[in-house]
Amino acid sequence: MNPSPDNQRGERYLIERLRKICQPPAIAKVPFGDDMAGISPNGDLATTDMLMDGVDFDTSSQPLEQIGYKCMAVNLSDCAAMAVKPSAALVAVALPENWSTQQVETLFSGVQRCAAEFHCPVVGGDTNSWQQPLVISITVTGSPISAPIRRDQAKAGDTIYVSGPLGGSILGRHLKPVPRLHLASKLAQGYHPSAMLDISDGLAIDLDRILSASQVAAELDETLLQTIIHADAVLLAEQDGHTPLEHALHDGEDFELIVTHKELADSANELGLFPIGHVTEGSGMVRIAADGRRTPLPPGGWEHFR
Amino acid sequence: MNPSPDNQRGERYLIERLRKICQPPAIAKVPFGDDMAGISPNGDLATTDMLMDGVDFDTSSQPLEQIGYKCMAVNLSDCAAMAVKPSAALVAVALPENWSTQQVETLFSGVQRCAAEFHCPVVGGDTNSWQQPLVISITVTGSPISAPIRRDQAKAGDTIYVSGPLGGSILGRHLKPVPRLHLASKLAQGYHPSAMLDISDGLAIDLDRILSASQVAAELDETLLQTIIHADAVLLAEQDGHTPLEHALHDGEDFELIVTHKELADSANELGLFPIGHVTEGSGMVRIAADGRRTPLPPGGWEHFR
Repeated sequence: MNPSPDNQRGERYLIERLRKICQPPAIAKVPFGDDMAGISPNGDLATTDMLMDGVDFDTSSQPLEQIGYKCMAVNLSDCAAMAVKPSAALVAVALPENWSTQQVETLFSGVQRCAAEFHCPVVGGDTNSWQQPLVISITVTGSPISAPIRRDQAKAGDTIYVSGPLGGSILGRHLKPVPRLHLASKLAQGYHPSAMLDISDGLAIDLDRILSASQVAAELDETLLQTIIHADAVLLAEQDGHTPLEHALHDGEDFELIVTHKELADSANELGLFPIGHVTEGSGMVRIAADGRRTPLPPGGWEHFR
Repeated sequence: MNPSPDNQRGERYLIERLRKICQPPAIAKVPFGDDMAGISPNGDLATTDMLMDGVDFDTSSQPLEQIGYKCMAVNLSDCAAMAVKPSAALVAVALPENWSTQQVETLFSGVQRCAAEFHCPVVGGDTNSWQQPLVISITVTGSPISAPIRRDQAKAGDTIYVSGPLGGSILGRHLKPVPRLHLASKLAQGYHPSAMLDISDGLAIDLDRILSASQVAAELDETLLQTIIHADAVLLAEQDGHTPLEHALHDGEDFELIVTHKELADSANELGLFPIGHVTEGSGMVRIAADGRRTPLPPGGWEHFR
């Protein structure tokens, strides 16, 4: 929760450096650095997420089956974020040398449970062993449900929505994320959101990614924000002295969607989307209290290389 | 070089267990466990290879640029093994926390050098950091040049070829593998090999994979085998007491292709393919000396979980 996304060690800076090295062509009209990348002129996309023991999960305290489930779910969440229907997954693992076959099978049964639930077959992978902690890297390919929904097309005047209450996922929900594929499918087929992203690192930092990519700003309504605080955020706040709202704004691994849209009106409620504010001209984020007081909101959240 | 590929910790056993858990459908008519997997009804395939510091490379003694090159090359070698034209790559990394941005850039410049050489753009990936050694997991997607060439279609009577001299790659060649994509393209377009595989773990074990998958056996001609011993195998043999032929048969990371074909005749020479023996009915491998003496050849090579 110590924000420094733009420093020279920041992940965003690093990705920009790597983009310059790799000079990727725009396949399937998705810019480098979005949740998925174009892999074929036919419009197919792919995403890859690597998760490591001690960083993204903890094999000493969490069930291997749930860890496997999570590793697949976060990839499918990237598919949801771009409104892509997953078609296949490849699972590469570096397994600790002292693991039993039973442990490997338990891990993969969790991967498979999630894969089956969302109709994304595990078609292949790479199994390795080493004397270090577990690493799982999953790649999921898929096809856009309609057009891929990018993060860089939010427009001033759009309403900002989130797909569910946020914060305190560390109390347990972070191990059983629900990829919002059904919602993404509905949105893509009937509503054409301007931008979309899944909340992996925290609402504030992930919303900032939409805003920065779209070169716009946001005003968040503190009254509305109160409606998207998860009960876990309240519980956690009681334990650590932060406010529930701070947890909702800055905690990672909720895997809900941030959606920007010109105006969903009553449909938002039917879709299960909660409005939290508006996109505006300019840059940065600001919270607006009921009495009109404006507080700048830094894009804090969990980030590699901060 | 201590073969036990069929024990309960063997990689082959593990992959079979995982196949049962994942129950993958046959997309694009490629069976589970081949070098690439079908990802789309349109015939596209993908491969993923994860490489770890201390196992597949050594950051303490090898240049990061070459390590990056190698990580991409081994994935493209899988494409060559199935006669697939690569279309895009995703690169996921777990970087040691103490790395500088410069080190990351050097690694990726090697990845990109190989990607550019073989026209496979790096379109995306995932950057992470942790307090453990470097892990790189690359996924490459592509389309079959004609039909994908599987490992399970070798037929009794076929001649067995390799695409270059083997053994002793550890002396340096293992860091600069040349994916045999040009050869694979020629073979797929004009010759229709019955089976193909790239040599990652060693000729004996990789040939055994073709034979087991195809349910056939092989007779290797010791006189012909003498013609595919690399100069590095001779050098290494002088150092460690093994014979040059043992190195040619069992050393990994040569990334030449094993090709089985009904009869290439004079074309083999033009293509740069060296015959080493024949596919026969039955199971197992045998070496046949000039005087007719037969020596069983165990499928020894580098293997995870041996």
